[in-house]
Amino acid sequence: MKSRSLVSINDYSKKEILEILELAKYFEENQNKKFFEGKVIATLFFEPSTRTRLSFESAINRMGGRILGFTDANSSSVSKGESLKDTIKTVSKYSDLIVMRHPLEGSAQYASEVSEVPIINAGDGANQHPTQTLLDLYSIIKTQKKLDDLNVFLVGDLKYGRTVHSLLMAMSNFNPVFNFISHEKLRIPNEYKIFLDNLNIKYYEHTEFTDIISRADIIYMTRVQRERFSDPIEYEKTKNTYVLKNHMLENTKDNLRILHPLPRVNEISNDVDDNPKAYYFDQAKNGVYTRQAIIASILGINKHK
Amino acid sequence: MKSRSLVSINDYSKKEILEILELAKYFEENQNKKFFEGKVIATLFFEPSTRTRLSFESAINRMGGRILGFTDANSSSVSKGESLKDTIKTVSKYSDLIVMRHPLEGSAQYASEVSEVPIINAGDGANQHPTQTLLDLYSIIKTQKKLDDLNVFLVGDLKYGRTVHSLLMAMSNFNPVFNFISHEKLRIPNEYKIFLDNLNIKYYEHTEFTDIISRADIIYMTRVQRERFSDPIEYEKTKNTYVLKNHMLENTKDNLRILHPLPRVNEISNDVDDNPKAYYFDQAKNGVYTRQAIIASILGINKHK
Amino acid sequence: MKSRSLVSINDYSKKEILEILELAKYFEENQNKKFFEGKVIATLFFEPSTRTRLSFESAINRMGGRILGFTDANSSSVSKGESLKDTIKTVSKYSDLIVMRHPLEGSAQYASEVSEVPIINAGDGANQHPTQTLLDLYSIIKTQKKLDDLNVFLVGDLKYGRTVHSLLMAMSNFNPVFNFISHEKLRIPNEYKIFLDNLNIKYYEHTEFTDIISRADIIYMTRVQRERFSDPIEYEKTKNTYVLKNHMLENTKDNLRILHPLPRVNEISNDVDDNPKAYYFDQAKNGVYTRQAIIASILGINKHK
Repeated sequence: MKSRSLVSINDYSKKEILEILELAKYFEENQNKKFFEGKVIATLFFEPSTRTRLSFESAINRMGGRILGFTDANSSSVSKGESLKDTIKTVSKYSDLIVMRHPLEGSAQYASEVSEVPIINAGDGANQHPTQTLLDLYSIIKTQKKLDDLNVFLVGDLKYGRTVHSLLMAMSNFNPVFNFISHEKLRIPNEYKIFLDNLNIKYYEHTEFTDIISRADIIYMTRVQRERFSDPIEYEKTKNTYVLKNHMLENTKDNLRILHPLPRVNEISNDVDDNPKAYYFDQAKNGVYTRQAIIASILGINKHK
Repeated sequence: MKSRSLVSINDYSKKEILEILELAKYFEENQNKKFFEGKVIATLFFEPSTRTRLSFESAINRMGGRILGFTDANSSSVSKGESLKDTIKTVSKYSDLIVMRHPLEGSAQYASEVSEVPIINAGDGANQHPTQTLLDLYSIIKTQKKLDDLNVFLVGDLKYGRTVHSLLMAMSNFNPVFNFISHEKLRIPNEYKIFLDNLNIKYYEHTEFTDIISRADIIYMTRVQRERFSDPIEYEKTKNTYVLKNHMLENTKDNLRILHPLPRVNEISNDVDDNPKAYYFDQAKNGVYTRQAIIASILGINKHK
Repeated sequence: MKSRSLVSINDYSKKEILEILELAKYFEENQNKKFFEGKVIATLFFEPSTRTRLSFESAINRMGGRILGFTDANSSSVSKGESLKDTIKTVSKYSDLIVMRHPLEGSAQYASEVSEVPIINAGDGANQHPTQTLLDLYSIIKTQKKLDDLNVFLVGDLKYGRTVHSLLMAMSNFNPVFNFISHEKLRIPNEYKIFLDNLNIKYYEHTEFTDIISRADIIYMTRVQRERFSDPIEYEKTKNTYVLKNHMLENTKDNLRILHPLPRVNEISNDVDDNPKAYYFDQAKNGVYTRQAIIASILGINKHK
């Protein structure tokens, strides 16, 4: 894999995805290797994030790399009217790689065009969050021992949720069956259904969150955001309808695992947390290994070094 | 000492306190040992702090550990409605230890119950700040060559000051005499007087800050906060009454040392700073060694490693 | 050079400036030496900065040093009413060196008087920003192969721009000719003209940004800030008059290089960026080597160590 930016999950072929997942496995099994020693990595968060930023910082620190950056745009020169181009060009003079989150869709692509070092997109608005998708895939392969032929349920905000869209596209390499569960107003957009139709991938749409989940290998829960609804009553109703409760897991498959990109609000009851099928916190931990693999791959570091 | 969280100073027995202080002394005398190499420590400050955070970060950096975290809740997912439980569970996947400051009393205890790694309480509201107490004890033993049989004056806000309450409880292991100097409205609460009575520890209460300090081995000054008073005139009067000035130190004992947890506002005059009895900045420095000892003890690292 | 603070560019003699530039060259040619291993450096930014802070952090990280600090005053105890003296005295107990930016003129000098470790002034209001000047000089010597006998054009806000004033004073050691181009209201202050007259250094003042730049070896562009004008129309006019465009570079000297301390707003057109004479992003990169040299010099680390 040549040295380059990661802007969209579509930048990676199926083969490259599998290589990243294999490298992540190697890093999980061989921790605290100092592969990033002597590297300086910038983490530029133009909007706040706990999980993604800290996960990257853990990944980098554990491998001996050094970090610089900012955690929100207010403590940067952006507040002096500097363009994104100038910020990126400058920071690319200070670092070997830039991890970047920005509220504007397309900003990561633009940054990758002006930067002198590779860019990793850590979320650009509603558009892409490819490192999340790779850690989702790593969590699936780790728990299911395979990526092929799985029955994947996607629940919650299927309209705006970028993690859902990216996961759908990446999983489409592996002959899945999809089940979409959402409120009428938050259904999966037509473009994704056409995409699946073209690949002859089966999918089913539901508006009720019922015992159909007994067929699931993976349930991927997502947060429904208040700002998606103009009517607050409708939001409250939706928020409280698509909630996973522990008793709903009674007749589910043994290999079922519950994923969630986090943060959650109330869409998974706290009583699910102790169920062995709950996997979302381990999924967060997988983010460390996956991001180590992505960085290593982009910097051209391989495990036999 | 087994691996575990430090939530309250009462988590430590007298013997354990003395072990920490001895380890701090070892670290002061043997600096820049890389005992924390390969460790990633999270510093989660849900409310801002200069001193405590930077002191922990100095302690960790000097011993080769790595740091991730946030400096206020705004740059975290808390602003997206994430629960403390989820934040702590996630960050405990990214790190080997969590240092945490939070405005809510009891939050550190709760965090220690949900975390998969040890928690160090770096202040939970008005409740506890045990690493401050340990550095206060280290400053006392370092300057007095002992902890036993000392005459300790506590001055300022004795009602709300968490550092005062914790120090009082910890020092009660060492047969002290206490003198309390405060405004009528900021007297030491009755529960602490009952606690001392039960242990047959002598204490005296004063509302005037006079030459009674000639008997003191330690004067522990604290800040009086404006928000404790509904009447601003009464605040101004109080603020200006319990002020330590250099001339007041004329007839004091040679071994007397002035402590203050800092930050100060005006309760110690600047003219005291150059008096050899002023010890509060050195006390801050002791925080580095004490926190190294606490972290090492919790991570199960010992000096003979 | 003995261990001491860097508050003003005037703290360094011509000989010392040349030593710093030589050391910067050595560090550029010998990267990733771990000269700062075991050192803890505080970066205290009482007001936000991307470039200066990240440049220092890159410099320190690449040489193996460790960093602690804050990126704006809100996440420090300053918000609890702590004095600058107390903050500096405390942080000087935690670190080996303090890099500091503060909005008040004179604050760096004051900090250097109360600190127990050296202070590097990373900008104190409109007063001084000496590490910027040293990286400007490094950029000049690197591109011109000399500092002596150059024709230096200074453009934009010559009245308030601290980088302009410091560069003027530093370059005056090297027999330059100056050309000043600015709006009538932003002319170079008289005190600097008197300073140059006393040294018999030639200078010319212009209000038009024309083909006179054909004589330039260095054009140093600066940002015109809106807040300098009471009349917004006059600001807009000025902002759009002193703009460097690519076609203006047609008949300029081959060795000409364009510098800018950045961030820019619109005073250099984007079409200049790809011109080989545009040097402002490389100039930013030079900040890393120059700051490494300054820190090494202050900490008494030399390259033969």
